[in-house]
Amino acid sequence: MGKLIEYEDASPEVRAVYDDIKAVRQTDWINNFWKALANDPATLKRTWESIKQIMAPGALDPLMKEMIYVAVSASNQCPYCIASHTAAARKKGMTDQMFAELMAIVGMANETNRLSAGYRVEIDPQFR
Amino acid sequence: MGKLIEYEDASPEVRAVYDDIKAVRQTDWINNFWKALANDPATLKRTWESIKQIMAPGALDPLMKEMIYVAVSASNQCPYCIASHTAAARKKGMTDQMFAELMAIVGMANETNRLSAGYRVEIDPQFR
Amino acid sequence: MGKLIEYEDASPEVRAVYDDIKAVRQTDWINNFWKALANDPATLKRTWESIKQIMAPGALDPLMKEMIYVAVSASNQCPYCIASHTAAARKKGMTDQMFAELMAIVGMANETNRLSAGYRVEIDPQFR
Amino acid sequence: MGKLIEYEDASPEVRAVYDDIKAVRQTDWINNFWKALANDPATLKRTWESIKQIMAPGALDPLMKEMIYVAVSASNQCPYCIASHTAAARKKGMTDQMFAELMAIVGMANETNRLSAGYRVEIDPQFR
Amino acid sequence: MGKLIEYEDASPEVRAVYDDIKAVRQTDWINNFWKALANDPATLKRTWESIKQIMAPGALDPLMKEMIYVAVSASNQCPYCIASHTAAARKKGMTDQMFAELMAIVGMANETNRLSAGYRVEIDPQFR
Amino acid sequence: MGKLIEYEDASPEVRAVYDDIKAVRQTDWINNFWKALANDPATLKRTWESIKQIMAPGALDPLMKEMIYVAVSASNQCPYCIASHTAAARKKGMTDQMFAELMAIVGMANETNRLSAGYRVEIDPQFR
Repeated sequence: MGKLIEYEDASPEVRAVYDDIKAVRQTDWINNFWKALANDPATLKRTWESIKQIMAPGALDPLMKEMIYVAVSASNQCPYCIASHTAAARKKGMTDQMFAELMAIVGMANETNRLSAGYRVEIDPQFR
Repeated sequence: MGKLIEYEDASPEVRAVYDDIKAVRQTDWINNFWKALANDPATLKRTWESIKQIMAPGALDPLMKEMIYVAVSASNQCPYCIASHTAAARKKGMTDQMFAELMAIVGMANETNRLSAGYRVEIDPQFR
Repeated sequence: MGKLIEYEDASPEVRAVYDDIKAVRQTDWINNFWKALANDPATLKRTWESIKQIMAPGALDPLMKEMIYVAVSASNQCPYCIASHTAAARKKGMTDQMFAELMAIVGMANETNRLSAGYRVEIDPQFR
Repeated sequence: MGKLIEYEDASPEVRAVYDDIKAVRQTDWINNFWKALANDPATLKRTWESIKQIMAPGALDPLMKEMIYVAVSASNQCPYCIASHTAAARKKGMTDQMFAELMAIVGMANETNRLSAGYRVEIDPQFR
Repeated sequence: MGKLIEYEDASPEVRAVYDDIKAVRQTDWINNFWKALANDPATLKRTWESIKQIMAPGALDPLMKEMIYVAVSASNQCPYCIASHTAAARKKGMTDQMFAELMAIVGMANETNRLSAGYRVEIDPQFR
Repeated sequence: MGKLIEYEDASPEVRAVYDDIKAVRQTDWINNFWKALANDPATLKRTWESIKQIMAPGALDPLMKEMIYVAVSASNQCPYCIASHTAAARKKGMTDQMFAELMAIVGMANETNRLSAGYRVEIDPQFR
């Protein structure tokens, strides 16, 4: 497993990102993903700044954004990302029913994506 | 490209599905995906019944459901599904800004899915 | 698009592979995949030798082998491979009904692969 | 890990699906996949009905169908699905030699899928 | 196809990114990827800034970086990205022989990734 | 988990491959991947011969080749392959900084692969 950088062992550059994560997420806890990325402070900072920008409230609300993140992670079968973003979505209000509907769509989309490929369906002019 | 079954050439079993698609979607138009699946009436019927059930209003509203479908299709890089479900989401009210935010999340999730894999990040006990 | 090496422009090394493809497949025709690989004679030879070994009759018959190739190619959404291996499977006897059943399984497997990931299903001890 | 619904804690709706799984598969045992899906009875029922229909004997025999399921699951690198469907295929008669040939094709198809993409091979008119 | 924003129709914010792309790449030409992203100026700017940072000379030289980009794009079978990053790698000095070796590795890695999954190979303690 | 074939239990055919692996890699140790493939001596031999050919020094040096293997494995999220090829790359001289830059590219390529798909970016004529 990858090495994790704890706050007390972190450089000022890494600590600044950890502090911002804590402030934005209103928590005292840094999860392993960031502690692993901290092995490369440039990627840590870039990734956090990007996530912060992308996941902020916008035309889509934060819960919906988090559920879209879960959808992609489940589709990609990424165990860490499924675990962490499902937890985040739960915290933002995702109910059992919402999770169930989300998974049903992810499963179905993966099915029809392959059916359209295997049957070599030509894109309708109306969709171009 | 796969053969497409037009309404006038379809069996009563296939026509019944086409009629239901038209009724549920309040349209006179059947897109190529269904016309290709009609080569296998059992799969046509099963897929349509599943989609109808999954995409119906529930804890998630139809627009959000359609956008999740787009997210998975873009992540899987399925040209037909991206084209058809983006069109469907637009029809249900997806604005340019919503689409932009959706794509930003899909891109970012695909990035962090690989970072967590490459850095072999152990799942936090809190997420189990 | 990639450059294609025609027989008349090919080196003796490449021609030897083309000749073997023609002999094994009992055809006079070389499809584009091999003409593209011929840009790298080592990969052309290695890939053809591997394919010839793997696709030869064994515990699984050639038609079943070709259909498994189609299944993977449709799952991966590879347009060239779907087109070429579906044609090859048809030539070896795949009927419309067999193709329909194949696609139904490919679609369903892609769906349940994601459901098991998203629901984070623990592997049963009986399956280990 | 996801919560698993045991028979004794299941609703009548879920029990009915479990009973049907047991009857069709002639077993007393329900594997974790279904116990996890039981968190969403609608998806449990829909998925089981679909699987039952798709995996029934047809133009392809049940062993071949199960091996195609294994092929897709291995290609998608889904640990749960590889474990469960390999076990199911073994039960239906898959020998070591058949499994070996299956894996060889899955590996090779994944290789040539990428070669055809990377070399940007144009689809031959004969395959259209 | 997605709408493309030309320089003359672009907002000052988008023009500033286009100008920086031209300056860094020492070219007068903006390729379609950026013109499409310009529909979302925030994603355009964030993506360009990230790419600029990541692809700059570092411990890996720019050609090697570009070839890694091609490797991932070919593995993901992304037609646009294969075309654009192969062209970029050629410009930075990738020879036919280097491309051939790159593709051979991409193909082989995709094969052994699936073999290790299908055979359910346990990670050696030495690799942990 | 799959059965592993140890040297002392191996057939002469398998032992010959193990011996060659040891000679080429100048080690006494065979990792689990090969011990699992040894269940199918034909695939063991073919895969090793292919890997030996592909990973030998050429226009690309062995370290770069190994890092490309890591890039594909991380992109495919294959735990075994990430672990084994990262170890191999480290042994061939990959520094922390090189690994960090590699992961940054893998992440970014996965992001822009999806953005180009989702925005349906048309390939520029210059790239064809």
